[in-house]
Amino acid sequence: MAPDETLTVDELREIWAALTPDERLVGFESLHRGDADDFFLGLSAEDQAQILHEMPATERRLWIRLLAPDDAADVLQESSPVGRKELLGLLDEHTRTEVAALLAYAEDAAGGLMSPRFVRLRPEMTVDEAIRYLRRQAQEHVETIYYAYVIDTVEQHLRGVVSFRDLFASPSDRRLSEVMREDVITVPEDMDQEAVAKLIARHDLNAIPVVDAEGRMKGIVTVDDIVDVVQQEATEDIQKLGGMEALDTPYLQTGLLAMVKKRAGWLSALFIGEMLTASAMSSYEEEIARAVVLALFVPLIISSGGNSGSQATTLIIRAMALGEIALRDWWRIVRRELAAGFMLGSILGTLGLVRIVAWQALFHTYGPHYVRVAATVALSLVGVVTWGTISGSMLPFVIRRLGFDPASASAPFVATLVDVSGLVIYFNVAQVILRGTLL
Amino acid sequence: MAPDETLTVDELREIWAALTPDERLVGFESLHRGDADDFFLGLSAEDQAQILHEMPATERRLWIRLLAPDDAADVLQESSPVGRKELLGLLDEHTRTEVAALLAYAEDAAGGLMSPRFVRLRPEMTVDEAIRYLRRQAQEHVETIYYAYVIDTVEQHLRGVVSFRDLFASPSDRRLSEVMREDVITVPEDMDQEAVAKLIARHDLNAIPVVDAEGRMKGIVTVDDIVDVVQQEATEDIQKLGGMEALDTPYLQTGLLAMVKKRAGWLSALFIGEMLTASAMSSYEEEIARAVVLALFVPLIISSGGNSGSQATTLIIRAMALGEIALRDWWRIVRRELAAGFMLGSILGTLGLVRIVAWQALFHTYGPHYVRVAATVALSLVGVVTWGTISGSMLPFVIRRLGFDPASASAPFVATLVDVSGLVIYFNVAQVILRGTLL
Repeated sequence: MAPDETLTVDELREIWAALTPDERLVGFESLHRGDADDFFLGLSAEDQAQILHEMPATERRLWIRLLAPDDAADVLQESSPVGRKELLGLLDEHTRTEVAALLAYAEDAAGGLMSPRFVRLRPEMTVDEAIRYLRRQAQEHVETIYYAYVIDTVEQHLRGVVSFRDLFASPSDRRLSEVMREDVITVPEDMDQEAVAKLIARHDLNAIPVVDAEGRMKGIVTVDDIVDVVQQEATEDIQKLGGMEALDTPYLQTGLLAMVKKRAGWLSALFIGEMLTASAMSSYEEEIARAVVLALFVPLIISSGGNSGSQATTLIIRAMALGEIALRDWWRIVRRELAAGFMLGSILGTLGLVRIVAWQALFHTYGPHYVRVAATVALSLVGVVTWGTISGSMLPFVIRRLGFDPASASAPFVATLVDVSGLVIYFNVAQVILRGTLL
Repeated sequence: MAPDETLTVDELREIWAALTPDERLVGFESLHRGDADDFFLGLSAEDQAQILHEMPATERRLWIRLLAPDDAADVLQESSPVGRKELLGLLDEHTRTEVAALLAYAEDAAGGLMSPRFVRLRPEMTVDEAIRYLRRQAQEHVETIYYAYVIDTVEQHLRGVVSFRDLFASPSDRRLSEVMREDVITVPEDMDQEAVAKLIARHDLNAIPVVDAEGRMKGIVTVDDIVDVVQQEATEDIQKLGGMEALDTPYLQTGLLAMVKKRAGWLSALFIGEMLTASAMSSYEEEIARAVVLALFVPLIISSGGNSGSQATTLIIRAMALGEIALRDWWRIVRRELAAGFMLGSILGTLGLVRIVAWQALFHTYGPHYVRVAATVALSLVGVVTWGTISGSMLPFVIRRLGFDPASASAPFVATLVDVSGLVIYFNVAQVILRGTLL
């Protein structure tokens, strides 16, 4: 891209992901000054950190000061320790104190998500005084003037909340202590962002106050931050379900080696687990040598177990993430999935039976004992699919009970588990049905 | 549950999912009148519809009138045609007209998500007049008073937006036409909710106006509705990725038969696809009969292809859903995934080699030609994993190009595709390496 070329905001946003860091800076510098503001504010914290790092040191102060303290803290989280110190030094003193306080929180906790700039009111203020005060605050750097928090003077405790709308709807000489809502839903500083998101979504809140262990209010988390959290948590779950570690950055911004590292760990672990299938197959080597026809259906049977297990585990993990089911529901799920697995297994078993009988009629593929072979495959499918469904639905419970993230019970993990047991089921059914004929 | 037992809101919410419809009604009726309001408003549209259906007809009017028009429309969407008519009749005339208009939109389009109750201002109003007008609106049933829309008198076109905060920060005799922001981001009525969510998230908006083809404003979509949309869209994608149709209702509220139906379709389709493995195996039946050792590694090899394909497809589908990559990026992805696949394949190939050599040293499992067997397995793994990774990453592009939802390229779908080709790769590598020894 030539440095004298100018781009519109939309054009730059379109190609952004594909640009190298210095191309990004060139594109950014080419924006009109008025557009550049909005563009910068719309970037992710990571991209903001990167572009701050790229630009000449003299320009940095302007851009870092554009950010609200919670956003500035996010940018600092994304910077190197050296860069962090430098950027912190560029902030005005008041903001620096706030940002430094925010940096003490984990990025994915309520404290790391909150803005410390909320409007504080006193319980003895009148509605009219409060409106006038908020009017002055409208020009200040507060996160929102639409929700204001009533804090007592002595203990600094959160006493209640008033929305702007409540104030407008109340007589102007009434005291806030009379009009505020007192049953405020609050969250502790260290609550996980996923739990905060769930509370906000369930109660349709626009903002939720964050309080410390002494009941003092530290900040607010607003619903627009929650949209990002929900997206991000879903992305992590989806990537784990796909059988890898969650990426820290968007796909195209993740380096090849970093990405291979995120994938190789689980892939190798699954591979080592899957080696058990070679051992299982070895122990049936004699049967396979005598009836090679048995080997033909191995992929079909174990993949059916894997697919049904993948369905079950996905359903359960998502329902857990949404809070629809809890650990104590496990027995209800076992019964449901047992029934579902048996029905699904019977459907696939029937399909398998039809397939073998039809191929036999058409091509005489499976020899004189094809009825027994068909019965072996069909019965094994019922067993393997039922077992896959039960294992897939229970694995998230087991993993969560052990204290890990249930989303680690990925589809490939379940498939690997079920493959080995699927082989055992199949060859045992074969030994019973084919004894005296093929085996 | 005894009818005279009373529950707190939290207790009822806790056990809600596990209750039958009539138990829910009993629980709901046992709440204190003040709590019941909040509880009812916090339910999903579906649960609201169900409980309205359960309660005596005489009580329905009270509860349906509690809802804002967009929420009432959602409840009606969830009701039977007969129930819909009855509930519509219970609304006051003004709301009935609004709700009937909303029902014309698809549930998952901007029109189906919006509230028609927004604040309209005229461009010639002064800031002071606008504030006084908004103050009166605070007690009316409008969705928000914090954003107001400036509409011209003649054409009813949307001219600009003012936030309450802007009004407070502006001189009181200024006209709205001078203080409003004119570059308003709007969405058409039929825009898909996922696209609306993306716009709101990208621009950190609190509300977005919905306009018809003539530029007339029809309603607003607020960010709190978007949290639900984002959750719901992620759930659909996750369930599709797990290899099934997305459920319409939460897991525990979905009947057993409905759930089996959602799962059986894809499971059977995958099973029929997977039958090709039996055909592929048949064509190598002779090789297997001569070298049974080959059969032992079939599950290991095909599952490695499936797992690596599942990783790749999951990554790409999520990146597409988040708008991080577009169709035209396909060639960049091919090159990246080719490199990643080759590296991952080499890692697994090495592990496989080590495993076979080690087992041979320990148990003499694999006969005199174990070095060639090990080489066959290792080379096949490199090929199968590279191929699985490429197929898994390209399948979402193909599906999207054909006009379908890329999330249908589920992990099991990719695994099935890769299983057949994995077998072909494996047996061809074997024929080259083992010719003259085992084969």
